Amino acid sequence: MNKMVLSLLVDNTAGVLARVSGLFSRRGYNIDSLSVGVTENPKFSRMTVAVSGDERILSQIKKQLLKLEDVRSITELKDGASVCRELLLVKVKVGPEERQQLISLADVFRAKVVDVSTDSVMIEITGNNNKIHAFIALLDGFTIEEMVRTGLTGLTRGGMVFED
Amino acid sequence: MNKMVLSLLVDNTAGVLARVSGLFSRRGYNIDSLSVGVTENPKFSRMTVAVSGDERILSQIKKQLLKLEDVRSITELKDGASVCRELLLVKVKVGPEERQQLISLADVFRAKVVDVSTDSVMIEITGNNNKIHAFIALLDGFTIEEMVRTGLTGLTRGGMVFED
Repeated sequence: MNKMVLSLLVDNTAGVLARVSGLFSRRGYNIDSLSVGVTENPKFSRMTVAVSGDERILSQIKKQLLKLEDVRSITELKDGASVCRELLLVKVKVGPEERQQLISLADVFRAKVVDVSTDSVMIEITGNNNKIHAFIALLDGFTIEEMVRTGLTGLTRGGMVFED
Repeated sequence: MNKMVLSLLVDNTAGVLARVSGLFSRRGYNIDSLSVGVTENPKFSRMTVAVSGDERILSQIKKQLLKLEDVRSITELKDGASVCRELLLVKVKVGPEERQQLISLADVFRAKVVDVSTDSVMIEITGNNNKIHAFIALLDGFTIEEMVRTGLTGLTRGGMVFED
C-alpha cells in the first residue's frame, strides 16, 4: 500500500465536499484523513486528502478527481518537496504523581500543555506523520481519554534551503 | 449568524464522510470547516465540523446528524468548556529585506518558520479562531502566495483550571 497526500483547490460551494467524498466512497477508495477550510480567496476552499492504495488506484484517484467540475487544481504533496503537518489534541488521564512525567515528555516533543485538571492533562502537538506517531507510541503507558487529529495538511516548498 | 463546532464520533467506514457531507449539501447548510481523522480506536473516526446558521438551523443540524447510522455521538464544543485549535500553513513572498520583519512577527505569535527559500518563507501557526484571524490580518502588508488551514478541531476540557 502506498500513501499519497493530495492538495485540492476547489470551488467554495455547498456540494463540493459531498461530491469529492462521494467519489471516494462509491469506488471504495480508502481516505486516511481529510481536512477542508477556507483560503486567502473566499471563492475557493483548499482540501487536503491523505489516501492509501496501490499505484494503479492512486493514479485513478487523481484522474477521477480532476474530472469533477468543482476541482480547480490538484497538487501531490511529495516528501521532501513539501511541508506536511497535522495537529493532535490528546487528553490523558493522570493523577498528580504522573503529571510531571507527562509534561516532561511533552516538552521533549515541543508539545504544548493546553489544559490541566485534577485528573487529566490535555496536550497539543503538531508535526509530520512520523512525529505524531512517535508521540502517540510514547503515550502507551498512560490512559488516553480522548484524542482528535486534524488530518494532514500541507504546502509545496518555496525552495529546499531549510527545514525546521 | 451563530457559529457552532461539533465533534462527531463516527464509524470508520468508507461512506460515512459522504453521508455526513451529503446531509449538509442537500439541505444547503453552510460548513465553515471540516476535518476527519483516525482516533485511538481504529473502529472509529472523529470528525470536527464548524457550521454557521441561525439557532433553528443549528438545532436541526444536530438532530439530523444524530439520525445517521454511522454517527455514534455528537458533542458541541462550546467556548470555555472546550479547547479548539486550528493549524495554518502560509507561504509568504518575501525578499531578503522583508524576511526578518516577517520572522519577528512570527515570533510574537509563537509561530514556527518551517521553510525558507530565496523569495519566500513558510510559517506554521496553531491557535483558536481569533488567534489565526489576527495573524492573517497582520500579514496584510505582505503577499500571501499560498495558504492552507486544517479547520478547527477540539476536545472538551477535563476541568477548567488552567489554559495556555
